[in-house]
Amino acid sequence: MSTQTQTQFLLRTEEIPTHWYNLNADFPEPPLPPLHPGTREPVTPDLMLGLFPESLVAQEMSPERYIEIPEEVRAVYALYRPTPLLRAVRLEKALQTPAHIYYKYEGVSPVGSHKPNTAIPQAYFNKQAGTKRLASETGAGQWGSSLAFACRIFGLECTIYMVKISHHQKPYRKILMETYGASVHASPSDRTEFGRKVLASDPESTGSLGIAISEAIEDVMRSPGSKYCLGSVLNMVCLHQTVIGQEAIKQMEMAGEEPDMVFGCAGGGSSFASIAFPFLQRKIKLGKQVRLVAVEPASCPSLTKGELRYDFGDTARTTPLLMMHTLGSDFMPPAIHAGGLRYHGMSPMVSHALTLGLIEARAVDQLKVFEAGTLFARTEGIVPAPESAHAIAAVVQEAIDAREAGRKKVVLFNLSGHGLLDLASYESYLTGTMQA
Amino acid sequence: MSTQTQTQFLLRTEEIPTHWYNLNADFPEPPLPPLHPGTREPVTPDLMLGLFPESLVAQEMSPERYIEIPEEVRAVYALYRPTPLLRAVRLEKALQTPAHIYYKYEGVSPVGSHKPNTAIPQAYFNKQAGTKRLASETGAGQWGSSLAFACRIFGLECTIYMVKISHHQKPYRKILMETYGASVHASPSDRTEFGRKVLASDPESTGSLGIAISEAIEDVMRSPGSKYCLGSVLNMVCLHQTVIGQEAIKQMEMAGEEPDMVFGCAGGGSSFASIAFPFLQRKIKLGKQVRLVAVEPASCPSLTKGELRYDFGDTARTTPLLMMHTLGSDFMPPAIHAGGLRYHGMSPMVSHALTLGLIEARAVDQLKVFEAGTLFARTEGIVPAPESAHAIAAVVQEAIDAREAGRKKVVLFNLSGHGLLDLASYESYLTGTMQA
Repeated sequence: MSTQTQTQFLLRTEEIPTHWYNLNADFPEPPLPPLHPGTREPVTPDLMLGLFPESLVAQEMSPERYIEIPEEVRAVYALYRPTPLLRAVRLEKALQTPAHIYYKYEGVSPVGSHKPNTAIPQAYFNKQAGTKRLASETGAGQWGSSLAFACRIFGLECTIYMVKISHHQKPYRKILMETYGASVHASPSDRTEFGRKVLASDPESTGSLGIAISEAIEDVMRSPGSKYCLGSVLNMVCLHQTVIGQEAIKQMEMAGEEPDMVFGCAGGGSSFASIAFPFLQRKIKLGKQVRLVAVEPASCPSLTKGELRYDFGDTARTTPLLMMHTLGSDFMPPAIHAGGLRYHGMSPMVSHALTLGLIEARAVDQLKVFEAGTLFARTEGIVPAPESAHAIAAVVQEAIDAREAGRKKVVLFNLSGHGLLDLASYESYLTGTMQA
Repeated sequence: MSTQTQTQFLLRTEEIPTHWYNLNADFPEPPLPPLHPGTREPVTPDLMLGLFPESLVAQEMSPERYIEIPEEVRAVYALYRPTPLLRAVRLEKALQTPAHIYYKYEGVSPVGSHKPNTAIPQAYFNKQAGTKRLASETGAGQWGSSLAFACRIFGLECTIYMVKISHHQKPYRKILMETYGASVHASPSDRTEFGRKVLASDPESTGSLGIAISEAIEDVMRSPGSKYCLGSVLNMVCLHQTVIGQEAIKQMEMAGEEPDMVFGCAGGGSSFASIAFPFLQRKIKLGKQVRLVAVEPASCPSLTKGELRYDFGDTARTTPLLMMHTLGSDFMPPAIHAGGLRYHGMSPMVSHALTLGLIEARAVDQLKVFEAGTLFARTEGIVPAPESAHAIAAVVQEAIDAREAGRKKVVLFNLSGHGLLDLASYESYLTGTMQA
């Protein structure tokens, strides 16, 4: 490729990270702990053992900087990791920008997103602990299909509560979960007391992640041998997802550039954390100048408009109280197409990083998101997931600003998934029927 | 990964092949040339210039063993190539087989299949020659979306005639083409004389690749500045697709094994050719013992039940006569879910290889295909395209035979695409409504 700019940066199998990185070890000030909602005392590990196995509770509360990735987990990661990092030269050209735009592409996983990075270890540690069945919720279906896949790999049963609006908008994701052998229920469902209560007060409810979480937790609390999993928000999830940023750091070194800015979309926070936290470590420990930007939907703006306070992680108020940016646990997000970002709260780690001024947050509206997603598809080929397209919208604006300022800038973003199962939303955009 | 079997074999960017391999240079006897249907004389290059630019006509007729890949084409290949090769250890375990099963995975391309390998050079050489617009047909939509993608990259307009049954069964593929900016028409359409003729005699026609090819050719013949593209069958397509087999040879060397058998699905022939031809060169030139197996649908069995004779490539009988295995250019394949394999004929190069006894052919029925595809998804994670699952069905049978014979065997197959846009067909299988 001698006459061309190199645009692709690939790692070898042995470069799959060997450890997860825990930002909690490096915060200049420690975050506030989760509280028991009754006593308002910090939760103790035993309180969490009804939902999670001991090994995962230990990860959730760990003060260790690095946690070793079991070989069995790395072996499953090797079905799709290391993932590629690319420079978006065709997008740069279309924007006539002096900015260099890089993206880390997680859509090469079997389900097409970054979610297996945490589904695989959560299923693995549960299997080790003797769990028979896992239950969880899913918004757009990326998390549910990842967990269904991971459960199948490790021989666990899997039950998914899928937010009703997505269950209807994304029928293929439901079939995908069923192809892996999971059972899938539209939430609110009549399988749980809380689901029945929601349906009684609003039979037309389109659901939310908060409601689906409550249903999955209730299901698990009544079923011995079952445990609960969460696809975002938790410390353990942010931890597992750091394989993305760790690989990206090596790949940016191959490219011979340091990013000035790193972008990720933010719903529960793990897509942003995945790419940002390893760079944030370099900012904290090595003084690297890098801006880390979480991009959320204007219609579900927990970081940019939410309050920082203790709140519940679910609508039924069954979880511990988490210190986070929140729109309130009863907030009902509008039915935007980026179902994976329809969550009232934000990862406590991401919230704490924002509070300390270590990261920034922006909100973008849905039409800008799909405008950017379509431009990306037409230049780089990959149709981005609507969630990931939030990061692209912010990157495109940054590239335009760089053009107008006439200044070079190196930006990196997490293309956390492809949108092949979200094409109905692109049709809505292309035919002009999408709401802002 | 010290304690685990290595399962993943990755190449670097610089290992993207630099040349396409032309099997026509190595056949022990030359294949019979295409004939002009009027004179029954071998076609001359000028006859093909209405449809293709000179550079591609030269490739179609080339006697050269290697044809250099332009840097501009390799630069676009680098959006997704080199693709991974994996060992399916979890599938092997599920089958309790001593066979070692390897697969080359092309689903990492932006559209999720191997088709961009030829769409990109076809669009590139047309752009070089001053073409403004490309027209083509598509079955399942894999080819159409690949060409739409390639046209967008090189700034060409794109018109696609999509077989009507797929247009209805696979709405997401249509949206994907439109996201890239292509215009898509269900075939038979009322845009061409031939389409109108078919609709007049059968208003309920579900279409076929043969009909859609005729429509695309008619469109091009009436439109100055437009050229035609084909996604399979032609020599140039088999040529371009050899990047797959060339990479696979290197990757099998990394794995330290030689395949005893290589499998690919066969509709028009290019998916099989892509992986088989570079291994066939080693068989012819180096005397390597390797069996090459083309796997086709039992309901569209051109190689296993068709006649070897001169026939037209399309239903309207507008193409040159090709010496090939054919079910007859008026054969109407049943509406199976593997839309990409619903073609009456077979690549002349693949047909010739079969005639010379260099390759083998097998036919499998649809239920076996989806049984194997579902098993693959549940062990290796990737939901295979229904087309690719034909190869898997044959591989599974081979692995079972190896178990029963108690003999190790190394098999390799081309997983030419993922089935995320074909999930409706998996639903039909899982709910028991699929026809054999």
